[in-house]
Amino acid sequence: MKLIIFLTMFCVSHLYSNELLKQSQAIFQAIPSSYEALNKVIDNPQNKLSKEKVKLGKMLFFEPRLSKSGFISCASCHNLSLGGVDGLSTAVGHRWTKNPHHLNSPTVYNAVLHKMQFWDGRSKDLEDQAKGPIEAGPEMAAPKELVVSKLKSIPEYVKLFKKAFPKDKEPDFDNTAKAIAAFERTLVTPSRFDEYLKGDEDALSAQEQTGLKKFINKGCASCHSGIGVGGSMKQMFPLVKPYKYANIGDFNDGKPGMVKVPGLRNIALTGPYFHNGAVWSLEEAVEIMAETQLGQKFSKEDVSDIVAFLKSLSGDTPKIEIPTLPRYTKSTPIPEL
Amino acid sequence: MKLIIFLTMFCVSHLYSNELLKQSQAIFQAIPSSYEALNKVIDNPQNKLSKEKVKLGKMLFFEPRLSKSGFISCASCHNLSLGGVDGLSTAVGHRWTKNPHHLNSPTVYNAVLHKMQFWDGRSKDLEDQAKGPIEAGPEMAAPKELVVSKLKSIPEYVKLFKKAFPKDKEPDFDNTAKAIAAFERTLVTPSRFDEYLKGDEDALSAQEQTGLKKFINKGCASCHSGIGVGGSMKQMFPLVKPYKYANIGDFNDGKPGMVKVPGLRNIALTGPYFHNGAVWSLEEAVEIMAETQLGQKFSKEDVSDIVAFLKSLSGDTPKIEIPTLPRYTKSTPIPEL
Repeated sequence: MKLIIFLTMFCVSHLYSNELLKQSQAIFQAIPSSYEALNKVIDNPQNKLSKEKVKLGKMLFFEPRLSKSGFISCASCHNLSLGGVDGLSTAVGHRWTKNPHHLNSPTVYNAVLHKMQFWDGRSKDLEDQAKGPIEAGPEMAAPKELVVSKLKSIPEYVKLFKKAFPKDKEPDFDNTAKAIAAFERTLVTPSRFDEYLKGDEDALSAQEQTGLKKFINKGCASCHSGIGVGGSMKQMFPLVKPYKYANIGDFNDGKPGMVKVPGLRNIALTGPYFHNGAVWSLEEAVEIMAETQLGQKFSKEDVSDIVAFLKSLSGDTPKIEIPTLPRYTKSTPIPEL
Repeated sequence: MKLIIFLTMFCVSHLYSNELLKQSQAIFQAIPSSYEALNKVIDNPQNKLSKEKVKLGKMLFFEPRLSKSGFISCASCHNLSLGGVDGLSTAVGHRWTKNPHHLNSPTVYNAVLHKMQFWDGRSKDLEDQAKGPIEAGPEMAAPKELVVSKLKSIPEYVKLFKKAFPKDKEPDFDNTAKAIAAFERTLVTPSRFDEYLKGDEDALSAQEQTGLKKFINKGCASCHSGIGVGGSMKQMFPLVKPYKYANIGDFNDGKPGMVKVPGLRNIALTGPYFHNGAVWSLEEAVEIMAETQLGQKFSKEDVSDIVAFLKSLSGDTPKIEIPTLPRYTKSTPIPEL
């Protein structure tokens, strides 16, 4: 009799658990394991991936000479050692200028999985996005003509651009951004949640599964969905109640407005949180989201379960060997501090 | 008869060349190839190298949270992708402060081979040197108490310090510097010149050997000698004629003074040159040294030959995978931009 009760409980619990898996598979997608399937997800038909492009793009991602000062590279604010972010509330750039809209640097890891880039979602892909910070005065402050003249002055770059873009004669700004984007497209970090989505229910602990269930049932997943666990849509922020640390007017003339829903992969590694990086605790970030977006007050247990689930989204970062960058020549424009 | 003439010429030329090798071996030393011999050169009895120390030190070298702002790490100015320097005339640091003495960031590659550190040679080893920039207001601006409280607040660092320094209870500032120095001690870059010094005369081209001969005979090697091709002594600068771009008073109250003779390994990769980074061309740097230190005017051919030799000192940098740094906790002090 005891055995029958046990088996019944086991089956009910298994069915219940299996239902959560099916529900999750309908809302999210795993990062594929096979090279071919992954390539379909990360490739851009307008900027086909190639080894040569990724190699060049990695160099350019780490290249501080893409900035006017020669001191700031993409990697300065999208620090690949720190979850792809700078770990600061407000991004800092050329001549220590803080982002004039108090914006926090988003991560480059898994950004390829998003349908839009920048906090206001104005950019459709990484190729378009990569140009922005290079030219922006408060970031790298380098006019595209300066960038191109630096790259053209260094024979090794000229060669590498020819290999990466055989149809083009010499480095140009579009191809600079395309190469950087190609490298960034490789920066995906599969996690235990992907193993779960692929059917391994043991990949998530009981608390993580409880957190996942709450994340779905309480409404978080209505925006944070898809392969990026977010990153696929914009949403009004704040929606129900005011945001206590400022409002979205930080970049929308002081009024609530439409904001990109950030992807939550690696969220435990990419604090501080929100567009203005005002919140350092992931628990508090979950509480605030519940209030501002869902009009709910989560219990401590709910927050703890959801945070446990969110931590299961921390993935393995790819191994990245730092590139060796070529020397300047006599015709390379000198950095302007 | 022709054969005899040829053989005689060959032997004379070989003898001549062999004499240069012997002379070079008396002045310089090769970076050893074997692990044991290399270890004798790079190890510090007061800070014995260990895998655990080097692993931790690499993380700390790339750790921007060692700075007050959370934005600047050792790697910011000693960029391992750019020959271990920042490629700027004047070092820039906390809140974009330029070095108040207009000093140029020296390379970390092969600094372990030097007998003193900093431009004025005030520091006897890397363990002592590593503390300076962390605390200096115009560099990383982090008081040691702040550094230690940040490290203590991150459990992964506490564990790694215990592994690296089993006798010590918790992270402290001395051990932070020791770990960084341990990593830096591994940053040596053997070059073709080392192959030459070990007896492979074909490792240097004819012009490079001519340049080496001139480098010795014209007096450059009287200061730039030893395993670091410099880095072993201080010398008055300028010695014979004034330095045209400023004087050593940049850090000596406006008067000529004793300056560390920089090591010339990788010199072709570590411009701009001199303590104030005023010279971008290696050719011009050689001309200036001839004038200010030797009271000579080198011919164009001399400069070209010596520069050819100097380029043979560009070595292979070690493969470095970027580290993953641990997340902050609730008790980690927040960065102060």
